[in-house]
Amino acid sequence: MKPRGFRYSAVNAGIKSMDYKGLDLGLIVCQTDFVLSGVFTRNIVKAAPVLIAMEQARRGTARAIVANSGNANACTGATGIEDARAVMRALARELSIVEDDVVPMSTGTIGVYLPTERIVPQVPDLVRGLGDDPEVFARAIMTTDTTVKLSRRGVGNACILGIAKGAGMIAPDMATTLAVILTDAVVTKAELDGMLKGVVSHTFNAISIDGDMSTNDTLLACASCMVEADLTEFAYALDEVVMELAHMIVRDGEGATKFVTVKVEGCADDKDARTIARAVTDSLLVKTALFGEDPNWGRIVAAVGYAGVAVNPAEIELSIQGMKVVTKGVQDRSFCEEDLRQALKEHDITIEIIVGGGRGRFTAWTTDLSHAYVDINASYRT
Amino acid sequence: MKPRGFRYSAVNAGIKSMDYKGLDLGLIVCQTDFVLSGVFTRNIVKAAPVLIAMEQARRGTARAIVANSGNANACTGATGIEDARAVMRALARELSIVEDDVVPMSTGTIGVYLPTERIVPQVPDLVRGLGDDPEVFARAIMTTDTTVKLSRRGVGNACILGIAKGAGMIAPDMATTLAVILTDAVVTKAELDGMLKGVVSHTFNAISIDGDMSTNDTLLACASCMVEADLTEFAYALDEVVMELAHMIVRDGEGATKFVTVKVEGCADDKDARTIARAVTDSLLVKTALFGEDPNWGRIVAAVGYAGVAVNPAEIELSIQGMKVVTKGVQDRSFCEEDLRQALKEHDITIEIIVGGGRGRFTAWTTDLSHAYVDINASYRT
Repeated sequence: MKPRGFRYSAVNAGIKSMDYKGLDLGLIVCQTDFVLSGVFTRNIVKAAPVLIAMEQARRGTARAIVANSGNANACTGATGIEDARAVMRALARELSIVEDDVVPMSTGTIGVYLPTERIVPQVPDLVRGLGDDPEVFARAIMTTDTTVKLSRRGVGNACILGIAKGAGMIAPDMATTLAVILTDAVVTKAELDGMLKGVVSHTFNAISIDGDMSTNDTLLACASCMVEADLTEFAYALDEVVMELAHMIVRDGEGATKFVTVKVEGCADDKDARTIARAVTDSLLVKTALFGEDPNWGRIVAAVGYAGVAVNPAEIELSIQGMKVVTKGVQDRSFCEEDLRQALKEHDITIEIIVGGGRGRFTAWTTDLSHAYVDINASYRT
Repeated sequence: MKPRGFRYSAVNAGIKSMDYKGLDLGLIVCQTDFVLSGVFTRNIVKAAPVLIAMEQARRGTARAIVANSGNANACTGATGIEDARAVMRALARELSIVEDDVVPMSTGTIGVYLPTERIVPQVPDLVRGLGDDPEVFARAIMTTDTTVKLSRRGVGNACILGIAKGAGMIAPDMATTLAVILTDAVVTKAELDGMLKGVVSHTFNAISIDGDMSTNDTLLACASCMVEADLTEFAYALDEVVMELAHMIVRDGEGATKFVTVKVEGCADDKDARTIARAVTDSLLVKTALFGEDPNWGRIVAAVGYAGVAVNPAEIELSIQGMKVVTKGVQDRSFCEEDLRQALKEHDITIEIIVGGGRGRFTAWTTDLSHAYVDINASYRT
C-alpha cells in the first residue's frame, strides 16, 4: 500500500562524517505537482531549509523533497540559504523541474555549514536510484533514532504514508522533528492545511522528550491527488498515521526506558489541561523517578502546582497505572507504596490527573530520563 | 561574628529514617521578638508549614524557627497543618512562648505525614541543647546537600548570618529551598520586606538546578534589632550574603560537575533577558553538553530562539569562556572547536549572550546535568 505518484531514493553523501557509510541524503519525487502543506518549528532561530520550505508551503505546491541528516544547516546565515539552494538547484537540473519545486529539510548539528561540495556530486546517483521503497528515505533522515519510523493507512482506494525521525530535541508546541506525510488522495490545499493543523495539536504537539525546541522541525504533507477519497475518512486516517508516528518518536526517545502517558482532566479549558500536562511531562524529577521506578508521587503533584494554572490543591486526584494515589489533595487511604513500586516496573506508564470539575482535558506523552539520555547528549556528533 | 540574640540547636528525631543518626530537626530561638520577613514558593501546592509561615510573615514578628529535613509535610491536608502545629505547640510550651511565635519549615519527601510521635518527645532535648553554633541548624536542614551552607557579613557593629540548604528541586521564580537570614541590625518590617524582595530577584530567583519548583521553598529574614546599623550598608551586605548562599546552592547542585554563569544582554528589558537566561539554564541539551564538555554551541542559540522573546536571529552574539563563538547569528570567523573543547574542561563556565542593542540584562546560574543527578533522583528517599 503506497501512495501513487511518489518515488524514493537515498545515498551516502559523507555528511555525517567521512567514516559513516550509511544513508544521509534522501529524496522523494512525485510524477506530478503535489499539494503541499507544512507545519514548522516556532523557534525564532530557524534553519535555512525551514525558511525556504515555509515559503514553499505558503505557495502550496512542489514536486520533490530533499532531506539530509548529520547537518542542521542552522545558524549558517546567508551562506546556509545559498547552500540549501545549491542542492535544490542541482536536483532541479537533474529532474528537469524548477528549483523552487524542491523542498529542502535538514537535521543534525547546528552551526556547521552544509558540505555542498560532497552533496552536489551525489545528486545524479540520488536521482538514478529512485524506486518504490520509502524506507530508504526514512533511513536517510535518522539521527540518534534506533528504529525506522513509517506508518500507513488506507482510505478507500487511496492511502496515506507517514515517515518521521525523532529521538531528541523534542518539545511540544510545534511540529516536532522531521516528518513527511504522503498521500494520493484528492485534497485541496485549504483542506490539507486545516486538517494538518488540527491533527498536530494533539499528536506532535503533545509529545516531549526533553522539552528542547529544535531549529529545524518540519512536518510536510504532500498530496498527489490521483485518487478520489472520502474526506472524513481521510481526516481520520491522517490522525491515526500522525499519532502513530508521534508515539514511535516517544518510544524511541533518546535513552527512553519508559513510554509515559499523562492524562489531565477537569480543567477550565483544554489549554489549561495542556499546560499542566506539559509541566508533568517536562519535570526532570518526575522523569528521573520514573526511570528509577520510584513511587515518589509527590513530584507529580508538585509539578501540577507549579504549572501556572489556578487549581485548588484540595481537589487534585492522581492515579498511576489505575491505582488511586491521591484523593482531594492527600494520599488515598488505599495507597500502598509497595504496590505502586511493582506497578512502575512496567514499560508503559499511565498517569491520570484530575484537578476539578471542568471539561478541559489533554493527553500528552513523554519518556523517562535515563543515564543513556545523558550519555547520548553529553557528546552528540550527528 | 554572630547576630546577637539568637541561639541554635539540633537533634536527631528519626525523621529521615530509623537508621539515620545525623541531625534532622533544628531550632533557632531569639531572646526577644524578632522582625520577620519571608519569601515563599509560588507553587500552588504549598506544604503545611509554608501555609502557616506565610501567615506569620504577614504578621511580621516571631520568636523561634523550627525546621526539619526528611519530610516535606506537603500534600498532607488538614492533618499536615495539625502535625506542624503540634510541633510548634510542644516547643512553645518548653520555651514559654506562644505557639504562633514558632515558625515551622520542612523539607524532604512529599506526601508523607510528619512523624510527630517521634518529633515531639525530642523537643525538651532540642531546647536544652541551645547554644552559639549556627552550624548545627545548617546541618539539620541538609537533604542531598554535600556541604554546609553558611554566609556572614559585618555591618558596622551589627552583622548578618545566612543559612541555607539546596541540592535539588531548585527553580528560579521563587525563593528557592529553605534559607534563614539572621541579623541583629535595627530594621523595620517594611524595610526588611522591601530589601528581601529586591535581593531575591537577582539571587535565589536567578538560580536553577533542574527547573522543578518545590512545594516548600521558604526564605525567612529575622532581625533581633539590637544594634544600630547603616541601612545602605545593611542592604549591600544582605545582597552579598544571599548571593553567596545562592551560589553555594548551585555549586552543590545535585550531581553538578560545573558552575555555569549565563549572562544575557541587549534585550528590550530585564524581564526578557531573564526569560532568555532561564531557557538556557533549563535546557537539558545545553546542560548535558556542558557535562560532556562538548563544544555544541548550537544548542545555546536554539534555546535563545525558543525562549519566547522576540529577538532577531541575525543579531545574536555568543561568547563562551571569553571566546567569541557566534557573531551576527553565525559562527565567528575566529572560532576554533578544539580551543572551545579545551576551555570547557574548566569547572566554572561563563556563557555570554547578546541579542541586540537594548539595555535589558540578566545573569543566571546553573549546573550541568550529569549521571549523578539521574542517580540521586532515580531513587530519592529523604
